[in-house]
Amino acid sequence: MDELRSDPITGRRVLIAEGRSARPSDYIVRGDSQAQHSASADNCPFCAGAEQQTPSPNQQVLDENGRWQVRVIPNKYPAVTTQSAVEKHGEIVPPFSPPEQAYGEHEVIIESPRHVRDITEVSVEQLATVLQVYRDRLLYWSADPRIRFAQIFKNYGYEAGASLEHVHSQVLAMPFVPVTLESELQGASRHYQEHKNCAFCDLVTLELDQRSRLIAEEEQFIAFCAYAGRQPYETWVMPTAHESDYRKLTDAQAHSLATVLNRLLKKLHFLVPQLSYNLILHTRPFSDFDPNQYHWHLEIVPRTTRLAGFEWGTGLFINPLSPESAAKILRETKV
Amino acid sequence: MDELRSDPITGRRVLIAEGRSARPSDYIVRGDSQAQHSASADNCPFCAGAEQQTPSPNQQVLDENGRWQVRVIPNKYPAVTTQSAVEKHGEIVPPFSPPEQAYGEHEVIIESPRHVRDITEVSVEQLATVLQVYRDRLLYWSADPRIRFAQIFKNYGYEAGASLEHVHSQVLAMPFVPVTLESELQGASRHYQEHKNCAFCDLVTLELDQRSRLIAEEEQFIAFCAYAGRQPYETWVMPTAHESDYRKLTDAQAHSLATVLNRLLKKLHFLVPQLSYNLILHTRPFSDFDPNQYHWHLEIVPRTTRLAGFEWGTGLFINPLSPESAAKILRETKV
Repeated sequence: MDELRSDPITGRRVLIAEGRSARPSDYIVRGDSQAQHSASADNCPFCAGAEQQTPSPNQQVLDENGRWQVRVIPNKYPAVTTQSAVEKHGEIVPPFSPPEQAYGEHEVIIESPRHVRDITEVSVEQLATVLQVYRDRLLYWSADPRIRFAQIFKNYGYEAGASLEHVHSQVLAMPFVPVTLESELQGASRHYQEHKNCAFCDLVTLELDQRSRLIAEEEQFIAFCAYAGRQPYETWVMPTAHESDYRKLTDAQAHSLATVLNRLLKKLHFLVPQLSYNLILHTRPFSDFDPNQYHWHLEIVPRTTRLAGFEWGTGLFINPLSPESAAKILRETKV
Repeated sequence: MDELRSDPITGRRVLIAEGRSARPSDYIVRGDSQAQHSASADNCPFCAGAEQQTPSPNQQVLDENGRWQVRVIPNKYPAVTTQSAVEKHGEIVPPFSPPEQAYGEHEVIIESPRHVRDITEVSVEQLATVLQVYRDRLLYWSADPRIRFAQIFKNYGYEAGASLEHVHSQVLAMPFVPVTLESELQGASRHYQEHKNCAFCDLVTLELDQRSRLIAEEEQFIAFCAYAGRQPYETWVMPTAHESDYRKLTDAQAHSLATVLNRLLKKLHFLVPQLSYNLILHTRPFSDFDPNQYHWHLEIVPRTTRLAGFEWGTGLFINPLSPESAAKILRETKV
């Protein structure tokens, strides 16, 4: 069980999780800069038939023959857990704050029973089912009063931090709102106080009006390159109508969202050789929150440039491709 | 000339710098996950004798024979510049904020006339000279009233974002304080209000008292693994006496700092195969600032783990090696 530490100066939280370094990898890393993909369909713990290698599922979506199509399991190498007490690696004393218990749970959503690496290789219907399972996990975790937020995310490819190649996403349920979402909530709240309107709704209006960063319009959703994107092709997918809460996603919306996402990811795969990306769901915290002030969305961040010292040191990102150029390229890419 | 955009929700600044993608690289990148080092001493623009390939120097340190030992030049592919007006790639309209001009300057500090990749291969005296040049650049830029902060940093190795291998650091002089330092200034200020003491001085006392994260003590400096380090072996080097301003570094202190740094980097090279790291100088802004509340230091962050979607999405880092374990390993590594 891990320690949740706060930086003594900034308060920035860090999970100290020594057990996680033992987790398995489908990537053979040579030195620190070379990774090579290893074929591992033969002994993949996420494939149908290998269920005994992983813990019992927290949720399964079955087909008409009773075979699972999507399977949610506890992460065997969790970053947080509901299990036990804090294992303290070191002491800190006043005036600094003691570590907290990293209470929570870390789940894996296995997105296909087949050994598929890339989510564009499953059907749009299957992807829609996965997006419904995202919703189900949020519904499940929001019933636990100790959990305030659940982060759903997907790492695809070595550069994006994936360790196993079989298509999957992850859920991290935790008792606090992490700093990036907190900053978004604060910004959206400032905007709401000043303009009496949801900042994201104003952004949807702007993107639909200007169209220079727009990539796709589907029923109830738009995809656009982020105005201040941190990396080339950073794309946000957002419902056009105001909705703060991904838990309210309908099955029809899941299908529409899957259509947008499938097309976007196919374009990215076509454009970027050996694509790596992170997909991050931004949705409201479960408590202490005004639903008028936030608007859920997906952020898809291809990992095409390395984060250098400047970005680490300053938090100021340098993006070598303007979002308008990126959107034009994405619009013109036919898949 | 580039655009400095603010995210419409969070205000997070991003530099849109299309010209920079054309910059040369000593690294051959195969796909997006493999980089191979290419020998390029033959045509390195930073070597003595190749001065005509780079702009005229802003500063040079000469030896007794008039040959340069350290050379500061404008970056040919700057992220910011004092030159011209904003090149706008796209529009944004109220209620969102317009882009700012990315006013500033981006310099390269060439740290040796020889084609050396690794700063531990130059003498401690030469490294001390480099650390004095850091000070000189801050003194130079703080005389420009439009510049509020200069970020000095070093990227070593492909994973850390280096593009040319010849030993060098960079300076980014800019009109604002970037978000990471701002957050540190705010945290230090909160601590000062509450405890009437510099947060970093309290941290020095704690580290010298507990010793579990301590790596080295040299005259006037300590090196220790950061209590809430984001990556394995993240190390801070800090003056033991209160000093907010790196511009006040004496030549004797530069020598002592070079001694600590040389030993630390040698240990990291020994421990981590194909080491990549970022070195980031944290010092006070040039204006609007209380010198009692801040304390300059160096942050050295080896890039041993990849930043995954979770870190991107949440700002919450997961460190698989506790700072106390890392410090013990570093203390026991003899170089």
